Amino acid sequence: MSEQDLSFTPVSGIRLASTGAGIKYADRDDLVLVGLSDSTQTAAVFTRNAFCAAPVTLSKAHLTANRARFLLINSGNANAGTGKPGMQAAIDCCRAVADAAQCAPEAVLPFSTGVIGEPLPVERIAAAVPGLVGQLSEDGWSRAARAIMTTDTVPKLISRQIMIDGVEYAITGMAKGAGMIKPDMATMLAYIATDANVPVGLLQDMLQVAVAGSFNAISVDGDTSTNDACVLMATGAAGGPELLAGSEAAGQFQQVLDELCLALATELVRDAEGATKLVSVEVSEAADQADARQVAYTIAHSPLVKTALFASDPNWGRILAAVGRAGLERLDIDRVRIYLDDVCIVRDGGRAPDYTEAAGQAVMDKHELTIRVVLGQGQASARVLTCDLSYDYVRINAEYRT
Amino acid sequence: MSEQDLSFTPVSGIRLASTGAGIKYADRDDLVLVGLSDSTQTAAVFTRNAFCAAPVTLSKAHLTANRARFLLINSGNANAGTGKPGMQAAIDCCRAVADAAQCAPEAVLPFSTGVIGEPLPVERIAAAVPGLVGQLSEDGWSRAARAIMTTDTVPKLISRQIMIDGVEYAITGMAKGAGMIKPDMATMLAYIATDANVPVGLLQDMLQVAVAGSFNAISVDGDTSTNDACVLMATGAAGGPELLAGSEAAGQFQQVLDELCLALATELVRDAEGATKLVSVEVSEAADQADARQVAYTIAHSPLVKTALFASDPNWGRILAAVGRAGLERLDIDRVRIYLDDVCIVRDGGRAPDYTEAAGQAVMDKHELTIRVVLGQGQASARVLTCDLSYDYVRINAEYRT
Repeated sequence: MSEQDLSFTPVSGIRLASTGAGIKYADRDDLVLVGLSDSTQTAAVFTRNAFCAAPVTLSKAHLTANRARFLLINSGNANAGTGKPGMQAAIDCCRAVADAAQCAPEAVLPFSTGVIGEPLPVERIAAAVPGLVGQLSEDGWSRAARAIMTTDTVPKLISRQIMIDGVEYAITGMAKGAGMIKPDMATMLAYIATDANVPVGLLQDMLQVAVAGSFNAISVDGDTSTNDACVLMATGAAGGPELLAGSEAAGQFQQVLDELCLALATELVRDAEGATKLVSVEVSEAADQADARQVAYTIAHSPLVKTALFASDPNWGRILAAVGRAGLERLDIDRVRIYLDDVCIVRDGGRAPDYTEAAGQAVMDKHELTIRVVLGQGQASARVLTCDLSYDYVRINAEYRT
Repeated sequence: MSEQDLSFTPVSGIRLASTGAGIKYADRDDLVLVGLSDSTQTAAVFTRNAFCAAPVTLSKAHLTANRARFLLINSGNANAGTGKPGMQAAIDCCRAVADAAQCAPEAVLPFSTGVIGEPLPVERIAAAVPGLVGQLSEDGWSRAARAIMTTDTVPKLISRQIMIDGVEYAITGMAKGAGMIKPDMATMLAYIATDANVPVGLLQDMLQVAVAGSFNAISVDGDTSTNDACVLMATGAAGGPELLAGSEAAGQFQQVLDELCLALATELVRDAEGATKLVSVEVSEAADQADARQVAYTIAHSPLVKTALFASDPNWGRILAAVGRAGLERLDIDRVRIYLDDVCIVRDGGRAPDYTEAAGQAVMDKHELTIRVVLGQGQASARVLTCDLSYDYVRINAEYRT
């Protein structure tokens, strides 16, 4: 996604404003305020990390009332590992918005991303908030998508439109990455809004379905960071009827939401730290879903597979070794087949007889490719998006704080 | 361990010979034959990888008879992922030794390490075997320790002596590494011999105890490669009485064996691919052993922690995030304390109030350091040895086959 591509569809009832508060970076935006219309329903999923950041704890608490009217998002500082002072800082940030916008502090959801363990500069944030309140605009998405970036090299902003029963709905989402192997640096954040009319229970269900197949399938899952969050807002401003759980309309909406989340997740992997390749790991014919995911993640997390991908080296032995150590008790290695795109590399317990290095090399030379593992055990399957492990990954993460 | 340090104590009853068979490398030894005296008892542990290599399968089968008289070890080729032809190649190698040394093929244990998936050049190995049989010598350890190396930069060969009830016993072991993050490249191999008189059942028990605290605690464990193997041989040639399970003598012997295995394992990590730091991850006050190991491995495997170690960056937030995502259900983050050596970096859910960046930096600047996590939940503890993730790790593994 290049700088020129930042076209988007505004979502009626959602207004955004961004500014540079000097939190960590100079000369760039690092603070975003999102204003939600009074009718907006809000759903969210958060990191499962036990050391979750203060803003995560506070956003969860504020969400229980389902009357969120503002999101306040800062980059440059995760406000994680900051103990009680960190919680006070998050509370003070919400208070600053409440004072400036004349709302309850509980109507504000705070989000932070950046370095862990540094005190959040609340004064600078609070000083910038009143200006943000006055600048809220439905056209603010593009600038906000840039303001929430940390080590991302490009902003991620995607819109979809869908016509259901004669009403046109907009869905627009922005996201920021994602360390590479496991996004535990702090943080993946995603904000998705629609003008559809969705009750909060259904909205939460829909978000969880969409996240399972997208943000939680990019070698994230159990390896969530201290600050990961994904928020879905529904303003109802398009004027359509309330979507009902189980209805055909809800199914159509879910499909577009799934597509949008997968597109955003794909952009995160494509722009992962130091990544030069986008790799889909697809495991099929597993005995059950857990087996399929276990094999897919073992491959996607293997530093040896990832460095081979970086070198464009069709070192299929490393993929085979990863499948073998995934811990599947029922694995029959003579039934396993492994493919690079459509090229079969492993069959009958060893290298496929018709495999040639040239055929494997041709796939490895591509920037986007699929590692496909057929286990020959059952019907379950799983898919994980990942990338390679490059010199730049080491450089970026060795230099991150300096 | 430098080239000059290769002093060792020969083990009566164990003879070794090495040569260059041209398996993969030119101008270096890559084939080792080890001859065991008729009285020798042999124990071994192997990889748990489902795609274990042909020589592993064959060695396991041959071991069941407990009459091993030769080990044949090659570097440069793992004979893994080679299917039925690979098994035939391993059988042919054993046959070559049997023919040259006038023994049963089942008396030969084959071992291979190197690249996965290439056909083993059996003819070259078979051609070199007769010469090896004629050169077997109790002084052959030093040359053998070099011949089994792959990406190792130095050979690993360590001896210990122990006096029990007036009899002096020798224990000598050699090993080769070990990829870094998880040694699944192929392969860790270790061969340890003693002239003590140990029945095979006790020998196997002792080996498993020693391996659990050494080779299986260097971020190996479940992540074994296709070829990992550790062999313990007892010739009885020192003339002492048979060691009895549960005896004080067996306890004394176990202690020295444990020390020797830990010393070899430490050398493996110190010489891991691209490693610049040797890091001990120690977790204590865990509710149980599984929790302690889970936290230790999560830290030891975290690419973000490892790149911070490479950068000598006291980025304690990454350690805290790793503890938080280790998946401990009962974790109370307010009780967790984290230390770099003796410097407390995390306490009461956040950065320790008395922590200073200078103190953390002083520890991080060292080549050997300890990350200590106190969970505050119980009595269990675990220790894992690991290293950092450097540019050179990526370089070595991206260039391995080229």
